[in-house]
Amino acid sequence: MKEIYLDHAATTYLLPEIKKEMESYWEDNFGNPSALYFKGMDAAQSLAGARGRVGKILNCSSQEIIFAGSGTESDNIALQGIAKAHDIGEIIISPIEHDAIINTVKYLETLGWKIIHVPIGKDGVVNPEELKKLVTDKTVLVSIMYANNEIGTVEPIEELVKVVKEVNPKTIFHTDACQAGPYLDLDVEKLGVDLLTLNGSKVYGPKGTGILYIKKGTSIKPIIYGGGQEFDIRSGTENIPGIMGLTKALEIAHEDKEKEVKRLTELRDKLINGIQEKIERVNLNGSADKRLPNNINLTFEDIEGEAILLHLNEEGIMASTGSACASHSLDVSHVLKAIGLPYELIHGSIRFTLGKRNTDKDIDHVLKVMPGIVEKLRAMSPVHLDEGKHPQVKQ
Amino acid sequence: MKEIYLDHAATTYLLPEIKKEMESYWEDNFGNPSALYFKGMDAAQSLAGARGRVGKILNCSSQEIIFAGSGTESDNIALQGIAKAHDIGEIIISPIEHDAIINTVKYLETLGWKIIHVPIGKDGVVNPEELKKLVTDKTVLVSIMYANNEIGTVEPIEELVKVVKEVNPKTIFHTDACQAGPYLDLDVEKLGVDLLTLNGSKVYGPKGTGILYIKKGTSIKPIIYGGGQEFDIRSGTENIPGIMGLTKALEIAHEDKEKEVKRLTELRDKLINGIQEKIERVNLNGSADKRLPNNINLTFEDIEGEAILLHLNEEGIMASTGSACASHSLDVSHVLKAIGLPYELIHGSIRFTLGKRNTDKDIDHVLKVMPGIVEKLRAMSPVHLDEGKHPQVKQ
Repeated sequence: MKEIYLDHAATTYLLPEIKKEMESYWEDNFGNPSALYFKGMDAAQSLAGARGRVGKILNCSSQEIIFAGSGTESDNIALQGIAKAHDIGEIIISPIEHDAIINTVKYLETLGWKIIHVPIGKDGVVNPEELKKLVTDKTVLVSIMYANNEIGTVEPIEELVKVVKEVNPKTIFHTDACQAGPYLDLDVEKLGVDLLTLNGSKVYGPKGTGILYIKKGTSIKPIIYGGGQEFDIRSGTENIPGIMGLTKALEIAHEDKEKEVKRLTELRDKLINGIQEKIERVNLNGSADKRLPNNINLTFEDIEGEAILLHLNEEGIMASTGSACASHSLDVSHVLKAIGLPYELIHGSIRFTLGKRNTDKDIDHVLKVMPGIVEKLRAMSPVHLDEGKHPQVKQ
Repeated sequence: MKEIYLDHAATTYLLPEIKKEMESYWEDNFGNPSALYFKGMDAAQSLAGARGRVGKILNCSSQEIIFAGSGTESDNIALQGIAKAHDIGEIIISPIEHDAIINTVKYLETLGWKIIHVPIGKDGVVNPEELKKLVTDKTVLVSIMYANNEIGTVEPIEELVKVVKEVNPKTIFHTDACQAGPYLDLDVEKLGVDLLTLNGSKVYGPKGTGILYIKKGTSIKPIIYGGGQEFDIRSGTENIPGIMGLTKALEIAHEDKEKEVKRLTELRDKLINGIQEKIERVNLNGSADKRLPNNINLTFEDIEGEAILLHLNEEGIMASTGSACASHSLDVSHVLKAIGLPYELIHGSIRFTLGKRNTDKDIDHVLKVMPGIVEKLRAMSPVHLDEGKHPQVKQ
């Protein structure tokens, strides 16, 4: 059975050319960059080179790049690190942030920080005017993701930064750009952000790697203490193979961006339109236009997302759901809740996230099997039967 | 020129069999363990399997193993995590702990924790009776490393735990076992510790990986918040290739331990004795017998460790020093200071740490070149000349 991987937002495979880039750092150029011999100096040079290469993509100085152990860790350094370096005040986030943000601010709340959620509409987009109203002289930090992992909504970061800084120029702006990596412009100067998080395992790079951009002059403290690596912001022997792989991953993503965005947008729209043509009572979650080119999040009324997933799995198709059991928490997706989706519709949500190796044929195959799966599940659905409806799959 | 790597305490190369173990997890079995399809379930199963395999080596339950991003991070989770879960009290450490411990307790001190250093002798060994005197009903945590990274001293952890628990059974005992990994018994039940840290990059495993053993029932909180992975203690998408590699590395280390300890002890003693026979005024730092089988730390009077390193580097020999410039900090080795070595002797210190691929021939080569290097440097040394002495290299 052919496998069709449609869960690239969960994690990506490592591209062979990235694996190759990492190759020499495992056993040959394995030195500790702090060491005083050629092998150590070579490692230090590779590390400095990687920092410069990432800086080039983000349009910043190499000194503003911190290599960390995951996107989650970068998010935590950003939020906890800023909180530690400032007097207790207010932090504004969107209600659709990743758990790495949501749960970190919950912790900061226990320390006395006031956490404010900016309201969002049904499309999941943060309105700059709504955000502006919340900024005060006590707003230390605003953290709003560049693109959402569940519904793919792209936030207007440039505008959001502008309105925040208009009211309080001292407010620090962080954006979690983990999902944006391969698709959106990462120019930090253009975006105007002070901090930006990236993640290796979402950009076809190695797992266990992350990046935090920290604008020069930003007051921040470490959360992990030790040997003082990464400008004393993230101690621990540098993971040189991981750093080299992540750097190469970002370069490939940067180079392929334009072409991939165009290609995936077409596949995405074909899948959305195809499903909506073939199946009744299917709704797209999130914004139709302010959306990542690889994200499809649909609600199938009257059925369980998990049941759909299991049937898709039998067909070799891999996707995800905002339904409860699919996540570590016992609760349903906080993102779908935040955009006002009622529980019964959240339970029927399915996310497909496309990637580099998906083809037109993959989309055709999904379009071929979905109507049958939905028909079968709706036929069994007590909700559906209660309403006295017949399976509503268009032929 | 043949390269002779003698800095295994700084970091190790990845063994080919470990690289092979990681191989399938990059591009094939790359799924996110949280996912509801075969590829995700396979990843979850690999992860659970790895946890069990590590548990077997440490003689604990798989539920007591946390995979982290480095030894430094594990140390930080241990100390900060315990501190967060308890009322402010006292923490006892040894003065020769790794920076990951030293700098973390410095941070905890700013939060109000009282940090107490147990006195140590010239050999770097912690005396159980000295430790016992310091334990009170306010002692929340004791953190003493299993083996020192600079002078290789092996601490009597089993005895130390015993005396601590005698005075205060509630006191939690953590040991940083990063350097002990390939050489000492990691049976946590025998050791009696509540927490134990290990590190991939010191046991021939992948960089960017660490382990924290947390005894069941220990009250601890996370320092990185997010998706709730690793029993909610260390959030972030699991680095499955890294975890599989680290697990294999520990298995190999465990299997080869007895043989390697014997082999390296012989090489170690040959190098120590050989240098002391050929060169005058060379002293061994740390205990002669309570010592890692791979550690040689020597002070060459009247010369600079860095100068020796640079000459060794020219000969393809890689080693390290406790002298100032060789470290991130501007200060000299806090370990050599703590065992009472005066500054001028610290500056003349050189550490050789042996490993898997070192042979008798390597030791012969070091013994061949060292006298000439020392002779040359002593001839140029102002200290040496001031004393009106001639170069004191035995022929």
